[in-house]
Amino acid sequence: MGKGRLEAFSDGVLAIIITIMVLELKVPHGADLEALRPLTPVFLSYVLSFVYVGIYWNNHHHMLHTARHVTGATLWANLHLLFWLSLVPFVSGFMGENHLAALPTALYGVVLLMAAVAYFILQRTLVSAHGRESLLARAVGADFKGYASLALYVVAIPAAFARPWSAAAIYALVAAIWLIPDRRIERALRDVRD
Amino acid sequence: MGKGRLEAFSDGVLAIIITIMVLELKVPHGADLEALRPLTPVFLSYVLSFVYVGIYWNNHHHMLHTARHVTGATLWANLHLLFWLSLVPFVSGFMGENHLAALPTALYGVVLLMAAVAYFILQRTLVSAHGRESLLARAVGADFKGYASLALYVVAIPAAFARPWSAAAIYALVAAIWLIPDRRIERALRDVRD
Amino acid sequence: MGKGRLEAFSDGVLAIIITIMVLELKVPHGADLEALRPLTPVFLSYVLSFVYVGIYWNNHHHMLHTARHVTGATLWANLHLLFWLSLVPFVSGFMGENHLAALPTALYGVVLLMAAVAYFILQRTLVSAHGRESLLARAVGADFKGYASLALYVVAIPAAFARPWSAAAIYALVAAIWLIPDRRIERALRDVRD
Amino acid sequence: MGKGRLEAFSDGVLAIIITIMVLELKVPHGADLEALRPLTPVFLSYVLSFVYVGIYWNNHHHMLHTARHVTGATLWANLHLLFWLSLVPFVSGFMGENHLAALPTALYGVVLLMAAVAYFILQRTLVSAHGRESLLARAVGADFKGYASLALYVVAIPAAFARPWSAAAIYALVAAIWLIPDRRIERALRDVRD
Repeated sequence: MGKGRLEAFSDGVLAIIITIMVLELKVPHGADLEALRPLTPVFLSYVLSFVYVGIYWNNHHHMLHTARHVTGATLWANLHLLFWLSLVPFVSGFMGENHLAALPTALYGVVLLMAAVAYFILQRTLVSAHGRESLLARAVGADFKGYASLALYVVAIPAAFARPWSAAAIYALVAAIWLIPDRRIERALRDVRD
Repeated sequence: MGKGRLEAFSDGVLAIIITIMVLELKVPHGADLEALRPLTPVFLSYVLSFVYVGIYWNNHHHMLHTARHVTGATLWANLHLLFWLSLVPFVSGFMGENHLAALPTALYGVVLLMAAVAYFILQRTLVSAHGRESLLARAVGADFKGYASLALYVVAIPAAFARPWSAAAIYALVAAIWLIPDRRIERALRDVRD
Repeated sequence: MGKGRLEAFSDGVLAIIITIMVLELKVPHGADLEALRPLTPVFLSYVLSFVYVGIYWNNHHHMLHTARHVTGATLWANLHLLFWLSLVPFVSGFMGENHLAALPTALYGVVLLMAAVAYFILQRTLVSAHGRESLLARAVGADFKGYASLALYVVAIPAAFARPWSAAAIYALVAAIWLIPDRRIERALRDVRD
Repeated sequence: MGKGRLEAFSDGVLAIIITIMVLELKVPHGADLEALRPLTPVFLSYVLSFVYVGIYWNNHHHMLHTARHVTGATLWANLHLLFWLSLVPFVSGFMGENHLAALPTALYGVVLLMAAVAYFILQRTLVSAHGRESLLARAVGADFKGYASLALYVVAIPAAFARPWSAAAIYALVAAIWLIPDRRIERALRDVRD
C-alpha cells in the first residue's frame, strides 16, 4: 500500500491542529494594552504548542520519508498519534486560560507524554514492517532524544503539582532538544549514498 | 477521470471533521478536577467519534486504492457520504453534552446508519463502474461486516429510547468490529499477485 | 506553471468551507425534540449550502481537469472565486438563524450570484489562456447552465424581499439544474478520443 | 529531501487560515441592515486579510516552484512564516471589532511586518541552499517589492497611533503593490528557456 494518502491525511490533520489553536486566542473587547494582558499566558501557551506540533510534523516528515510502504497497523498507529495531538489545542487553551495552574499544566504534560508514546509505537510499527536492516531502522537508530523526552515528561508531570512553571520550563526544554532538526535520518541517508 | 482529487478532497474533509470535533471540548473556566468532570461524557463521545471517522478514512482509503477511475456518479456518492460524516461533530457534541440522553443517542445512531448506507451506495457505484469481475468487486466481496453494521444500528436506534447506554455499547461494538483492518481487500490483492 | 498546487489549495479551501458550515449548527442545551426544532431552518440552509459547495467543487474539478497550465491571472481569478464561496458559511448561517427573513435570503442570493460571476471570470481566463480551439474551450461550450443560473439569481434576489420562500425555491432549482453532472466536458473528452 | 510535503502542508495551513478568518464574521441576531452595520469594519478587515493571505500563497507558490530541494532549515523557516500568518485571523478580528482603533491597527502592522521578515528569511534560506547562480536566486533578484513593503510597514506602525486610517491605507497600498503578480520569477524562467 502506498504512503501518499497517509502523508496527505496526516498533513491535513496537523495543519488543522496547528491552525485552530489560534481560535483559543479570543479577540478581546477592549482596544488597549489592558485588554491584551490576560491573553499573555494563552499566547505563550500557543507558541509552545505551535512549536510542538511543528516538531511532530517535521519528525513525521523525516520518518515517513524513509518508509517505503505502510500496512494496516501503520494506519492505526498513525491515527493513534493524531488522536493525542488533536488534544493539544484543548490542553493548550486549558493551561493558558488558567495561567499555568497545577492541574492544567500536568494535563498538558500527560498529552505530550501520550503523543510521544504514540510516536514511539508508530516508529516501532514502521521499523518492524521494514526490517531491522532497513534504511528506516538505521535512521531511527538508538533514539536517545525519544527516550530523553519520555523521561523528562515523566519528571515534569508530578512537578507540575508543586511548581507548574518548572514543568512548563521542562516542556520548553524538550521542545528545544527537538528543534535541532533530526539529523540522524539525514546522516543515515548520506552514509547510504557514500 | 482520475481519482487523485477525489481522494485529496475526501482526505481534506475527513481531516477537518476529525479535528474540529475537538472544539466541542470547551475549555473549562476552573482549573481543578471538578471543572473537568462535566467534560467526561463529551470526551468519551469524542473518542468514539474519532474512532468512527478514522475507520471511515481507513476503509475509504482501502476501497479507493483498488479503484482505477471515478465517474460523475462516484463524485456525488462520495459527497453524499461526506455529508453524513460532516454531521458527526454535531451529533457527537449533542450526545456528549446531554450525557447520553435518549434522543441525542438515537440521533447519533441515525447519522451512523445514514453514513453506512451512503458508504454502501458509494461501494455499489464503484463496483458497477468497474464491473463484477474487477479486483474492486472481488475485494469488496460479500461485505458481511457492512450488513452486520446496518443491522446493529437498526437495533440500537430504538434501543436508545429505552436504554441509551446499551445503544452506545452497540455503537462501540460496531466500531470494534471495524477496528480490525479490512483484510478482505489486502487478501484479494495478494490472491491476484499469486 | 503546473496546476497541481492550484487544485490542492482549492480542494483545501473548499473542504474547509463545506465542513466549518456545520459549526453553525450549534449544539442545543436541551435533549428533546423541542430543543432541536429551532435548528430546522439552519439545517435546511446547511443542506442547500453543502450541495452548492459540492457543485462548485465538482465543476471546478471538471474544468481544471481539461486545463493544461495556469497563469498568474488564473491564480487570482481562482482566489476571487474562493473569496465569494468563503462567505457562504456566513450567509448560510444568517439566512438559517433568521428563518429565511427577507434581507438574509437576498444576501444569500447575492453571494451565490457573485460566486457564479467569479466562476464565469475564471472560466474566461482559462479559455483565453488555452485558446478558443482548445479542448477546454470546446468543453465549456455555450454554457447555457451558467447563463440560466445568473438569470435565475437576478430574479431571486429582489423576489426575496417580497416572498423569501420563493427566492429559496429558486436557489434550490438552480442547485437541481447543476446536480445533473456537467456532461459537456465528459462528452467533449469522448468526442476527442473518437 | 523532496518539496512536495512542504508545499502540501503550507497549502493546508494557508487554506485553513484564509477560511477560518470568516468565523470572525459572527452571524448577527437581527435580520435588517441595522444588524449588519457593525460588521462593516470586520468585513473590510476580512477582505484585506484575505488578499494578504492570498498574496502570500501566490508568492510562496512562485518561489517554491523554482526550488529543487528543501533542507531542515527550510522546514523551520517555513514554519516560522506560517506562525506569523496564523496570527492574521486574530489581529484581523481585533482590528475589525475595534473599528480600527490605534493599538489593534498597529498590532496588525506588526504581524504583517513579522510575516514579511519571515518570508525574507525563508527566501534567504532557499537561495543559500540553491547557490547564488541558481534559477531561484536570479528569479528572486533584487527584491525591490520586499524592501519597499518592509519600509512601508515600519512607517505605518507608529502612524497607527496617530491616524489609524492612514496606517490601514498603507497596508492596502502594500497589498496593491503585490497584487500585480510576481513577474520576476516568470520572466527569469522565460529568460532561461531562451
